[in-house]
Amino acid sequence: MDVMDEVKYAEDLMVGDVIDLGSHTVGEAEMVDFSTVWDPQDSHLDAAAAAAGYFGGLIASGIHTTAVYQRLAVLGAYRYWSVIGARGLRDVRFLRPVRPGDVLTGLLVIDEVELDDRGRGLVTTTGQLADAQGRAVFSLLTELYLHRRP
Amino acid sequence: MDVMDEVKYAEDLMVGDVIDLGSHTVGEAEMVDFSTVWDPQDSHLDAAAAAAGYFGGLIASGIHTTAVYQRLAVLGAYRYWSVIGARGLRDVRFLRPVRPGDVLTGLLVIDEVELDDRGRGLVTTTGQLADAQGRAVFSLLTELYLHRRP
Repeated sequence: MDVMDEVKYAEDLMVGDVIDLGSHTVGEAEMVDFSTVWDPQDSHLDAAAAAAGYFGGLIASGIHTTAVYQRLAVLGAYRYWSVIGARGLRDVRFLRPVRPGDVLTGLLVIDEVELDDRGRGLVTTTGQLADAQGRAVFSLLTELYLHRRP
Repeated sequence: MDVMDEVKYAEDLMVGDVIDLGSHTVGEAEMVDFSTVWDPQDSHLDAAAAAAGYFGGLIASGIHTTAVYQRLAVLGAYRYWSVIGARGLRDVRFLRPVRPGDVLTGLLVIDEVELDDRGRGLVTTTGQLADAQGRAVFSLLTELYLHRRP
């Protein structure tokens, strides 16, 4: 955080606000690199086996897709917020297969801000990734603790 | 899958079965490498800033912790199953901070198997990671499609 007076505290977030998170291209090398370590299943890393399989080609690991969303959410929103940490994720949905070369565009909606008496606000957001045709490929709810205004 | 006659189809999974997924040590370099790309927040990658912050030191990205679970689940269970792909994750909980050097041990419980008439079974599992003291640090529900027996 470079400009401290621009930090957003829990009270500063507006329910209903929609934040454009920009885009990320899911390259085949990135898909294979990620899944080789974190999700070593043929459908994510073995092009020949995947071509003969259910999806007819490589698809991104759902955990990789979740990580793409997180990267976009940090760069487009959380880095301007006084984040403490996440309590959890709910309803993570892998709605459509993500293919090599897909350009995913992120969106974040602020659903709820609950202030507590421990100096925190629990912020619930809906996140989504859409492909270049505008079709939702991924969605989730994120529960994130922020600091309240000092 | 090397030994096809050992593949488990949806019908072969037993509700209530508990599978030990083994362990993974979350090293500091791995934490920083992961979060630099996928979750670039100070609490995950800047040791000095994290030491002065809410948790008093680096904590793993929740997405990294989720990826650790996925790796253990693939190596300990899914690679023996006829997995099609995941429908989603529910109730992902970051229960305690994960610190550099923590040894996380995974467990997977088969909660439900719903066969459909499209040749698939939707398998719901509860997953958990515990630290070396046996305290749960992470839990989730996973919804995974498997092939039915041909």
